[in-house]
Amino acid sequence: MTDPAAPPVIDLNADLGEGFGRWQLTDDDALLSVVTSANVACGFHAGDPSTMRRVCDRAAEHGVVIGAQVSYRDLAGFGRRAMEVPPDELADEITYQIGALEVFARAAGARVGYVKPHGALYNRCVHDEEQATAVIAGIRAAGDALPVLGLPGSQLHRAARDARLPVVTEAFADRAYTARGTLVPRREPGAVIHDGDEVVKRALGMARDRTVTTIDGEQHTITARSLCLHGDTPGAAVLARRVRAELTAAGVHIRSFAPGGAGDAV
Amino acid sequence: MTDPAAPPVIDLNADLGEGFGRWQLTDDDALLSVVTSANVACGFHAGDPSTMRRVCDRAAEHGVVIGAQVSYRDLAGFGRRAMEVPPDELADEITYQIGALEVFARAAGARVGYVKPHGALYNRCVHDEEQATAVIAGIRAAGDALPVLGLPGSQLHRAARDARLPVVTEAFADRAYTARGTLVPRREPGAVIHDGDEVVKRALGMARDRTVTTIDGEQHTITARSLCLHGDTPGAAVLARRVRAELTAAGVHIRSFAPGGAGDAV
Amino acid sequence: MTDPAAPPVIDLNADLGEGFGRWQLTDDDALLSVVTSANVACGFHAGDPSTMRRVCDRAAEHGVVIGAQVSYRDLAGFGRRAMEVPPDELADEITYQIGALEVFARAAGARVGYVKPHGALYNRCVHDEEQATAVIAGIRAAGDALPVLGLPGSQLHRAARDARLPVVTEAFADRAYTARGTLVPRREPGAVIHDGDEVVKRALGMARDRTVTTIDGEQHTITARSLCLHGDTPGAAVLARRVRAELTAAGVHIRSFAPGGAGDAV
Amino acid sequence: MTDPAAPPVIDLNADLGEGFGRWQLTDDDALLSVVTSANVACGFHAGDPSTMRRVCDRAAEHGVVIGAQVSYRDLAGFGRRAMEVPPDELADEITYQIGALEVFARAAGARVGYVKPHGALYNRCVHDEEQATAVIAGIRAAGDALPVLGLPGSQLHRAARDARLPVVTEAFADRAYTARGTLVPRREPGAVIHDGDEVVKRALGMARDRTVTTIDGEQHTITARSLCLHGDTPGAAVLARRVRAELTAAGVHIRSFAPGGAGDAV
Repeated sequence: MTDPAAPPVIDLNADLGEGFGRWQLTDDDALLSVVTSANVACGFHAGDPSTMRRVCDRAAEHGVVIGAQVSYRDLAGFGRRAMEVPPDELADEITYQIGALEVFARAAGARVGYVKPHGALYNRCVHDEEQATAVIAGIRAAGDALPVLGLPGSQLHRAARDARLPVVTEAFADRAYTARGTLVPRREPGAVIHDGDEVVKRALGMARDRTVTTIDGEQHTITARSLCLHGDTPGAAVLARRVRAELTAAGVHIRSFAPGGAGDAV
Repeated sequence: MTDPAAPPVIDLNADLGEGFGRWQLTDDDALLSVVTSANVACGFHAGDPSTMRRVCDRAAEHGVVIGAQVSYRDLAGFGRRAMEVPPDELADEITYQIGALEVFARAAGARVGYVKPHGALYNRCVHDEEQATAVIAGIRAAGDALPVLGLPGSQLHRAARDARLPVVTEAFADRAYTARGTLVPRREPGAVIHDGDEVVKRALGMARDRTVTTIDGEQHTITARSLCLHGDTPGAAVLARRVRAELTAAGVHIRSFAPGGAGDAV
Repeated sequence: MTDPAAPPVIDLNADLGEGFGRWQLTDDDALLSVVTSANVACGFHAGDPSTMRRVCDRAAEHGVVIGAQVSYRDLAGFGRRAMEVPPDELADEITYQIGALEVFARAAGARVGYVKPHGALYNRCVHDEEQATAVIAGIRAAGDALPVLGLPGSQLHRAARDARLPVVTEAFADRAYTARGTLVPRREPGAVIHDGDEVVKRALGMARDRTVTTIDGEQHTITARSLCLHGDTPGAAVLARRVRAELTAAGVHIRSFAPGGAGDAV
Repeated sequence: MTDPAAPPVIDLNADLGEGFGRWQLTDDDALLSVVTSANVACGFHAGDPSTMRRVCDRAAEHGVVIGAQVSYRDLAGFGRRAMEVPPDELADEITYQIGALEVFARAAGARVGYVKPHGALYNRCVHDEEQATAVIAGIRAAGDALPVLGLPGSQLHRAARDARLPVVTEAFADRAYTARGTLVPRREPGAVIHDGDEVVKRALGMARDRTVTTIDGEQHTITARSLCLHGDTPGAAVLARRVRAELTAAGVHIRSFAPGGAGDAV
């Protein structure tokens, strides 16, 4: 698929619009000038209608692709509480969220370009075949064959392929990886990398060299079309901007995976 | 507009899908075999995603037009608590609800054919210029020039006309009317007509003769393209079916106002 | 503990107040004339404040003991979706619900007499040590050493004993039991017994003879101080009344386990 | 009541615990070292159970009196959307919130010492007799004769007096006053005073001299037992601390109005 001689290309995605009413969390404006893909909260773990509209409007202005960041229905737990939702209901909840975002994307002159599960649903869909299949069924019911952003080897991607939906793999520059190439669980020491220099270095490795140093010190090949940047901590937007600058300086093209999305060619 | 020699035509609308999860209220299946327009709850006062999908699927099977029954965000009060929502936020909440329903209508091979506010929002939009204008702004942002179902003379219809949205007027066969042709408020005695024979008689008067007997005993001309039937009381579906049968027997054509909607011509 | 020569004594409990606003589910008035313990929904899976007040008032009038039916925060799933709530947060959610009910019980001249988890939380606390311990911590934080109603052998009762809270065991006359004395999961055939005569017969066996016929046809000893009656299906209240009448006719004393609770001695 | 020769005494109150799950708003720890009364959100406009517990625990440690900051049920609008809640339901919603907070106050070894409505409910209860009466009915149902913190001359205080509940008046150092001594509505220019020096000066005037300069430049007598400090803006805690320091330096005693509450005597 990828021409080895071609310059490396990467998409940058971040969670946006994760406020709710009076409460705001993510620095949406700052991040929209950095990322090429915006994972927009759709109201189930965060994301009131006015925030959704505003983020869609500004994403469209910046040429940033709008993605539906779908979640369990869990405002109190910010979508971080895994839930045993019956598959049919889960599929319908996913469809609902995509529809609610789609109308704001359309109003902004854009469209929903992909789907990425949030929080506990994301983690669950790595291993849980039933819920992953339900999420994909919900995406399919929304009508378009939307690309599904997730971890390589996840049940989510397995189910997406079965349903003939495009899959897009992502990597996390600020997360440690095991020898098998999976993420080190957050609870374990060293799971999250807080040092900015290290995050930049790992981003370069992932995007340019397609490798990551595992927590055991080994080099592991990694294939990611997108890097996930975090936007909900102080200084997050500054670090994201720096990652982008260093990637660009290293000859990595920053470009959305979605057709018509923003990138360095624009 | 209407050819006086043409046979009378009326649409029948009812509120459907007004459950939430474990709780169900309306006899959706029975009503879908009677009405030509289904006001589907969109999740703010009632209407979980699975109920929305099911009602859309069955409405499409019956050729019943799907309408977005938009509401204040008020599950605890069933949308019957008027709320001072800032106009911009209200518009966005309306857009959100339409989008959430649209995706299920589309999945059912149909589309959202109109919008009707629910409960306290409906009542508020009779007189409140600001909120009516916000609701219409929210409908317009959803993209299609959707018809707006409401009371003749309402601020909702005024705002719809200003925004060049089609308006559709409705009447209530089970509600008393004042001498000025407005509804007698629910709190006043005699406001709601419980006698089935009387409801049928008034439906006939409204649809065939375009008149209603006011609470003062006067005959008042009424122009309604749709009759609203209630579906949330025991026996409601039976009465609705009877109204339809008697209208048909009297030569009234039962037909949706929406292009492509169901009716006696089908 | 129990004097074998003493006449058998049983408490009857049922879930009450499981509506939310416009939606009502349980026939509270009918059940309050049958049961001796009312498991009152506290707002997280069902139970709006006005329903809670009304059920507390009427329970107090009938001398029925008020119990806090605590749940995951899940209106959309009626508390039937198991959730991975962090233990500290789960404990606080339990405490919150007990406090919210306590104020209505007190206003009715009564008090909260026990706690019973609802739905998915109930099932989870059979086996899950962490969540069971969290629930008990939440009960203890509410201040009184409230009795905990649940299944014998459950983690919930283990944790309650560890915390020196009284435990009360219950049995289900309309559920099949395995050879080990546990409930047959709802998904399996024959798990729920719909035949009224059979339910009455099993209730008699459980309360008077302390035995239950398992799904394999064996006799199994069962020790229950309370029988759970269901109130959310048509005919449920009628069946509950019949169970009570037949128990009484068979010489079983119907009496709450809570000090000061209602019973046949009153 | 007040001895004119006695040194002036004032209570300082602020809204605390106004986060919800992942979202936090108020700098609770900083404010708890400044105020003598904490208006704790109870879950209807903000305030998840864990935040409520934590704020109650820390308030108790600091000797700060815990007040129930009751609200309309409106997370999306942060309780700033006035709602037409039927009086009986409103009363029950108030009772529910007080009960939910009471259990955490008790667990912290303290108690709920007063009630203050939040946001739109606060504003509504200045003029709306029906809702003010409902709020007071809800407080009374909670059992204790809790003091009611509010504006002098408000319907809330009128209803509280009718119900024989203690009333406590408050003033706002950062809000402009009309010639009649009422607050200038937020929408009008100059309604909110952002200059820190001016806020301090006005606080001194209110607490020590019992006067306020109105927006027309007149001196107006004001009687307030409590000053409301805001805690939801950057720098709010710093300004609050400064107000307290300058009041103390000017000989004003900082002391809660509630019996047993914290103050300068501690």
